[in-house]
Amino acid sequence: MSVSRPAVHPLEAPPLTDGAAVAPPHRVRMKDVQGMPGTPGSLVLRVCQLILSAVSLSVMASTSDFPPVTAFRYLVAAVSLQSFWSLTLAVVDVYALLVGRSLRSPRVASLFTIGDGITSTLTFAAASASAGITVFVVNDLDRCDVKHCGKFMSATAMAFMCWFAVSPSFFLNLWSLASR
Amino acid sequence: MSVSRPAVHPLEAPPLTDGAAVAPPHRVRMKDVQGMPGTPGSLVLRVCQLILSAVSLSVMASTSDFPPVTAFRYLVAAVSLQSFWSLTLAVVDVYALLVGRSLRSPRVASLFTIGDGITSTLTFAAASASAGITVFVVNDLDRCDVKHCGKFMSATAMAFMCWFAVSPSFFLNLWSLASR
Repeated sequence: MSVSRPAVHPLEAPPLTDGAAVAPPHRVRMKDVQGMPGTPGSLVLRVCQLILSAVSLSVMASTSDFPPVTAFRYLVAAVSLQSFWSLTLAVVDVYALLVGRSLRSPRVASLFTIGDGITSTLTFAAASASAGITVFVVNDLDRCDVKHCGKFMSATAMAFMCWFAVSPSFFLNLWSLASR
Repeated sequence: MSVSRPAVHPLEAPPLTDGAAVAPPHRVRMKDVQGMPGTPGSLVLRVCQLILSAVSLSVMASTSDFPPVTAFRYLVAAVSLQSFWSLTLAVVDVYALLVGRSLRSPRVASLFTIGDGITSTLTFAAASASAGITVFVVNDLDRCDVKHCGKFMSATAMAFMCWFAVSPSFFLNLWSLASR
């Protein structure tokens, strides 16, 4: 029995270290993906979203005749919310980069995913509605002041581009949430 | 030594079966989620999508004055594509359920995810654009035949509900893709 003891222990150890060696590569791989919260890529995405939504907001607000149209009022509201959200997360990213903290807890990731999902859906719906109205007025009714319609088109295009910039953040957050 | 042999083997076996028992629960857990391809939940979702998109298409096509409006033409196109896609995947689900095959390969899941993402985005954009036009005509211009506008509203509402039915399929496919 005293001979069998040392033969048992070396056989028990390998599976434990093998199991521990399998887990870390997943976490290391996820940490390297740019665009997740707390990375420089995420900050770049947030700044892009902020610029695009702010430009869309200011272009739409600079036209004098947007208030009568419901879809344009909705675009202003959605893009304001989007710029506020992107500004907040840009500040959080700057803080995380300066302090060197990781924002990879499941709670933070799910909060960011839900927020990104809501704001991107609202921005996309507003951009689509505005695009529908703009195309309706320009092509179908064919009664459009060139000066104003150009502004409506620019604001709509900026809102669509803002949605394109939000989508990677949303999907990367969702992916990091699903793959943990 | 003849005494130690039987003492070694029972100790060697548990880590192996333990390691094998850790992997299956993940796969079993994923298989149980209703709504993923090849499950009855997925078939229910697909049939809901098919009915809602077909109703939206037929209501919109039954109005005589949708062709002049670009957004309504786009809605008809998007909802047609959605019903075709949902019908195809419903047939695939029925086949998988009858034959008892699992549709859980990464290639199939990524194909379904991309298809669901494209069709749901198109449907949502078309529904938003139609909603923008309908609200514009009803509230802002205030010139609307009640009979026609009711149909436009119904078709738009059906398209939105269709989008609500596509979203779970899309997110479940994406989740199963990310968590493997």
